[in-house]
Amino acid sequence: MRAYDTEIISVGTELLLGHVTNTDARDVSEMLSKIGINVKYHTVVGDNPQRLRQCVEIAKGRADILITTGGLGPTCDDLTKQILAEAFGLPLVPVQAELDTMYDYIKGGKQLTPNNFSQALLPEGSTVFHNLWGTAPGCAFEKDGKTVLMFPGPPKECCPMMEAYGIPYLKRLSDEQIVSHSVRVFGMGESAVDDLFRDEMNVMTNPTMAPYAKECDCLLQVTAKAHSEAEAEAMIRPVMEHVRERLGEVVYGVDVECIEEAVLPLMKERGLTFAAAESCTGGDIGSRFTEIPGASAVYLGGAVTYTNEVKARVLGIDPALIEEKGAVSYEVAKAMAEGVRALTGADIGLGVTGLAGPDGDGVHEVGTVFISMAVEGRTYVRETHMGAWRTRSFIRRMAGNHAFDMMRRWLTDLPVE
Amino acid sequence: MRAYDTEIISVGTELLLGHVTNTDARDVSEMLSKIGINVKYHTVVGDNPQRLRQCVEIAKGRADILITTGGLGPTCDDLTKQILAEAFGLPLVPVQAELDTMYDYIKGGKQLTPNNFSQALLPEGSTVFHNLWGTAPGCAFEKDGKTVLMFPGPPKECCPMMEAYGIPYLKRLSDEQIVSHSVRVFGMGESAVDDLFRDEMNVMTNPTMAPYAKECDCLLQVTAKAHSEAEAEAMIRPVMEHVRERLGEVVYGVDVECIEEAVLPLMKERGLTFAAAESCTGGDIGSRFTEIPGASAVYLGGAVTYTNEVKARVLGIDPALIEEKGAVSYEVAKAMAEGVRALTGADIGLGVTGLAGPDGDGVHEVGTVFISMAVEGRTYVRETHMGAWRTRSFIRRMAGNHAFDMMRRWLTDLPVE
Repeated sequence: MRAYDTEIISVGTELLLGHVTNTDARDVSEMLSKIGINVKYHTVVGDNPQRLRQCVEIAKGRADILITTGGLGPTCDDLTKQILAEAFGLPLVPVQAELDTMYDYIKGGKQLTPNNFSQALLPEGSTVFHNLWGTAPGCAFEKDGKTVLMFPGPPKECCPMMEAYGIPYLKRLSDEQIVSHSVRVFGMGESAVDDLFRDEMNVMTNPTMAPYAKECDCLLQVTAKAHSEAEAEAMIRPVMEHVRERLGEVVYGVDVECIEEAVLPLMKERGLTFAAAESCTGGDIGSRFTEIPGASAVYLGGAVTYTNEVKARVLGIDPALIEEKGAVSYEVAKAMAEGVRALTGADIGLGVTGLAGPDGDGVHEVGTVFISMAVEGRTYVRETHMGAWRTRSFIRRMAGNHAFDMMRRWLTDLPVE
Repeated sequence: MRAYDTEIISVGTELLLGHVTNTDARDVSEMLSKIGINVKYHTVVGDNPQRLRQCVEIAKGRADILITTGGLGPTCDDLTKQILAEAFGLPLVPVQAELDTMYDYIKGGKQLTPNNFSQALLPEGSTVFHNLWGTAPGCAFEKDGKTVLMFPGPPKECCPMMEAYGIPYLKRLSDEQIVSHSVRVFGMGESAVDDLFRDEMNVMTNPTMAPYAKECDCLLQVTAKAHSEAEAEAMIRPVMEHVRERLGEVVYGVDVECIEEAVLPLMKERGLTFAAAESCTGGDIGSRFTEIPGASAVYLGGAVTYTNEVKARVLGIDPALIEEKGAVSYEVAKAMAEGVRALTGADIGLGVTGLAGPDGDGVHEVGTVFISMAVEGRTYVRETHMGAWRTRSFIRRMAGNHAFDMMRRWLTDLPVE
């Protein structure tokens, strides 16, 4: 099986100034990994001929496939085609079909600038990738044992062109398929997951496993290569079973992006609804859940009760209780979950109250959060201490993860608190 | 003035697989460009010692400052420190203060794994960057005429560490100061801003101006270089005045990250409070506002009313009105703002109801959103049609921007609707 090492070269000073993020490299990489092509390097270089030339020389020396993004547009600092053509000793020649498109463009009433014409120039012998999403065409050629593909920089052009032209063009080079699944974990850290599987990982070659930390949870990625997708899936299956068994109840899902994505189908299956009473999360639980299409079948809404008065007015919590126990307390968290459940008529009521910082309340340490869930006549409460060094954003997100984790555990008959 | 060419090397196979986006390179680049340090290359390489070694050698040959992100964590594939130390002929030595932190960590009740210890090993003579946002420390050293800085990969650790340690460390290398201000705009697109200033921009050299699109608004960045910050500020001042005057009321702030950040101080100054009734935004307005420390002085909370029943039960909206006009309507938006204002006792009540998609309601096009604001006996409503091709996430965010923009306009005596 021949491995095709690939380098993605993204051209654009705006990337080096930090004005835009290099999502092209990510998206192109993701597409390539799915067809078994290994991306070994990403390089970003500015709109500078000399430096781009050097980067292309380095890439020629270490990669079989060179993919460029950016630097094909009509402005004067777009130079990718010129440098690549020169590096492979190819002249730039006008492509009639692309010139025709340019003339159509004029007829369309838009003004064609002189340098629009330069867009119709491509390295001799190239396969032309006509741009249906913008104006500058992309192209591909093979020379000196290397395969070169060029795409425009704007993600709305680069990604569909890579999908429509690049992937089919490259697929014939690859005789292997990669299949990868991620096992998502909440309640065990990346380094504990690493420890658990380190001995195995050290001796695995195909399939492989690798743990990754996400903001407030982690995942174990399991990957196999084979001649067909079915074969790769068959290789992965026993590993997945083993991993899930060994990790046990901290696994919240496979190939999902976040814990709320795992909760939605569990709720739907049972035909249940929930509502949330949010204090320190300020609406983030609702916002996160409703970011998922179809959330309305499950999430009714709720209350954001950022002040004590609103906790009392909207959720009907006894002000004397808040006074006695404090807004950040087991009792108030419990009353919030119960209150929002009664208010909305949801099957499950969630409550979150805590200190997200940076300022404290003089009683609790920042990072102290009570998360509650009222369901079927019982209210569960988790008390968490995330640590005062945590950011406001981390504490809020982690509080939401706990709330969704409590739902997930209850829905799958696991201990909740 | 010596130029310090910089290369950012990001280490992590997950970047090459397209599982994560290299936001570290963008964020670090943005911070560096503000202090006059030129980033010339970004490189991404996997968790592979040989390839990382080669990338470090290339970087040594073409850059003065090497900044690495990633590969400092406790798992077995984290190797950045080892390779960099080796490339510069430095041994790794244990740092007592970092070991102490690890022991404290144990006392905190968490389990310390053997490979946590390796995190306390750093290249000899390094300046240690203690990690207040995670566990793996970063560091910096100077050797062979090069300056090397290393940061952990998770963005929530990399960015604050770069800001707290990296920027002050590097600032002393640069003898020019760059001062840059961003004029934030809502209600005029990037290309309209570009058109407005294009003739001026074409002939400006120092200061310079450049427009940038953000997800749901845009900005004009004005930048000047000089030997001192005061000098650069003096150069920028008349440009800023001119820009603000020419853009007029679409300017919502200078050097703020988002429109809600501009609203908070305006509300505080007047001692006003607000509450929000959110339907299609699902809590995102509250979540965004409470992401800002100090939000509790202004934001009381509100209701997430994702279903018609909850709109009626929590906000007291007449079910017959919802039935007659539809949940996505001028009338219901108006009733939501008024309802949440009455419910919470806030000075300003906001309401948002609309279709974020991907599914429609058979009546309105996806992207139709009504945003309302009840204040001082009057209720303002904006009807927006963002376009059915917009993503759910865009529509929700844009709806929130409109709500905050209505507040900003009312607070600064501009027309609201």
